Amino acid sequence: MKYVFGVDLGGTTVKIGLLDNYGNKQEVWEIPTRKGDGGSHILPDIAEAIRDKMKEKNIDDADVAGVGIGVPGAVDGNGNVMQAVNLGWGKFNIRDELHSLVKLPVKAGNDANVAALGECWKGGGKGYKDMLMVTLGTGVGGGIIVDGKILNGATGSGGEIGHIHLQDDEVEACGCGNHGCFEQYASATGAVRVAKRVLEASDADSKLRHMDFECKDIFDLAKEGDEVAVEATKKYGDYLGRGLAAVASTINPEIIVLGGGVSKCGEMLFDLLKPSYEKYVFPGCKDVKFALAELGNDAGIFGAAKMFID
Amino acid sequence: MKYVFGVDLGGTTVKIGLLDNYGNKQEVWEIPTRKGDGGSHILPDIAEAIRDKMKEKNIDDADVAGVGIGVPGAVDGNGNVMQAVNLGWGKFNIRDELHSLVKLPVKAGNDANVAALGECWKGGGKGYKDMLMVTLGTGVGGGIIVDGKILNGATGSGGEIGHIHLQDDEVEACGCGNHGCFEQYASATGAVRVAKRVLEASDADSKLRHMDFECKDIFDLAKEGDEVAVEATKKYGDYLGRGLAAVASTINPEIIVLGGGVSKCGEMLFDLLKPSYEKYVFPGCKDVKFALAELGNDAGIFGAAKMFID
Repeated sequence: MKYVFGVDLGGTTVKIGLLDNYGNKQEVWEIPTRKGDGGSHILPDIAEAIRDKMKEKNIDDADVAGVGIGVPGAVDGNGNVMQAVNLGWGKFNIRDELHSLVKLPVKAGNDANVAALGECWKGGGKGYKDMLMVTLGTGVGGGIIVDGKILNGATGSGGEIGHIHLQDDEVEACGCGNHGCFEQYASATGAVRVAKRVLEASDADSKLRHMDFECKDIFDLAKEGDEVAVEATKKYGDYLGRGLAAVASTINPEIIVLGGGVSKCGEMLFDLLKPSYEKYVFPGCKDVKFALAELGNDAGIFGAAKMFID
Repeated sequence: MKYVFGVDLGGTTVKIGLLDNYGNKQEVWEIPTRKGDGGSHILPDIAEAIRDKMKEKNIDDADVAGVGIGVPGAVDGNGNVMQAVNLGWGKFNIRDELHSLVKLPVKAGNDANVAALGECWKGGGKGYKDMLMVTLGTGVGGGIIVDGKILNGATGSGGEIGHIHLQDDEVEACGCGNHGCFEQYASATGAVRVAKRVLEASDADSKLRHMDFECKDIFDLAKEGDEVAVEATKKYGDYLGRGLAAVASTINPEIIVLGGGVSKCGEMLFDLLKPSYEKYVFPGCKDVKFALAELGNDAGIFGAAKMFID
């Protein structure tokens, strides 16, 4: 086997990577995600794009280990998609369906889990086998790698740590319908919510009072020494550390890799979360390493390809 | 291969099982755990017991797949024991050391994780591959099975869910040094603590006021309709459900198996924990099955043997 395809299926575009079996990118390109008609064009489009590329490059079927694909929805270990709302998909087996179209072996996973596998192979978690990847973006996504493999879970919700319950007295509802979920505090949106509450409870002046701020502003102002922003980032770190401690006490990872928008503030994030992480985690799980994600948008195609590379 | 040995190493006795490779018990016997001299006699005693049994039964080395062993301490996936305080053991590789004594392949795991594997194979989790086993005893122990295999974790603390942080305002310290750990409420000891607090906050009369009660009494009195006991078991179920929800939102098991002293109250436990489990869990993990452990003290030898049976 010389090649493997890694596919990162997003709501707007499909990113496809052709990699050699050492994981070197040979070519990466994108096609639009045609979401009409219940998402029925998506897989045929992907299959066609792959077959066209093979023709263009004179690649035989026998030279391709397979096609790995990350899907924005829950996918179990047998390739069953539970649902992918953004694509218009209900329940079906993507492994079998894409295989029948592309005539190559197929493996599939949830996009966050697949990206975690990519980071574990080539990114922030390189060299480790038991990893927790957490994406701090609009929500909090997660992916768990156990002994080098994705923990899919029974119904493809393994690593969906954004909805661990953290806070009893939360009045606002989370997108999932519960109250007090981890992502209500630790996402980029959550950081803004936390900062607004700190601002409200404080009499101190702050640049945050005079702007319609977003997550980045809070961390930038904290770096400048803005008192309220510093307080808000501490509070944010407290929530983040508590949530990570709950997950780490369960799965005992070697390394926790942080990605997503919030992680752009860099290593200050580790200093912010460590006090509460160390306070709340099971002592046997205290000595974890923290790292930042490194692959950005490439994590998905690397992880998807990795499902076919041992 | 016709045989496998499963060893459950406890603080007082070592239970050894000779099983055929379908998992049928051929013989089970016990030897004392000689803890003196830094625990240096324990492994030689086990090796001798096994070699003697093979001689007695005319079993050749070639007929034995291996020796699986569960240890009361953290053990990683490579057989490194981190520590086993009760045995006087520090850090060493038990797989290599026992192998050099017994001259057979060896695999090792933490006892709670190994017992979980046993329950997944032959007990309450039979037929499932993604399982969470929780032992509600003096403490709260746990074991996680992912795709039929033990989740050991980086330092052998995988599944040590008893120390997930649940409650912020806890004044008493947990054995681990933290405050507000899951096991401070969900263990048998925790159930008594919870009941005492309910009793204190209530004016109602209750048999519990007139006795030095233990966990079993609370559940027995609740079944009889004792108002305070009913309230206490509800509160207990609320804590149990919350803790299980945090773990399930991380690993998305198919089935949660409950064992240990508290589980002797039977299926009423499911009714008690479900309201809070369903309230706090990530919706994608709501449809989990609950079951009671079935193997009791045999779970350890079955699980230990299973490490050598595919």
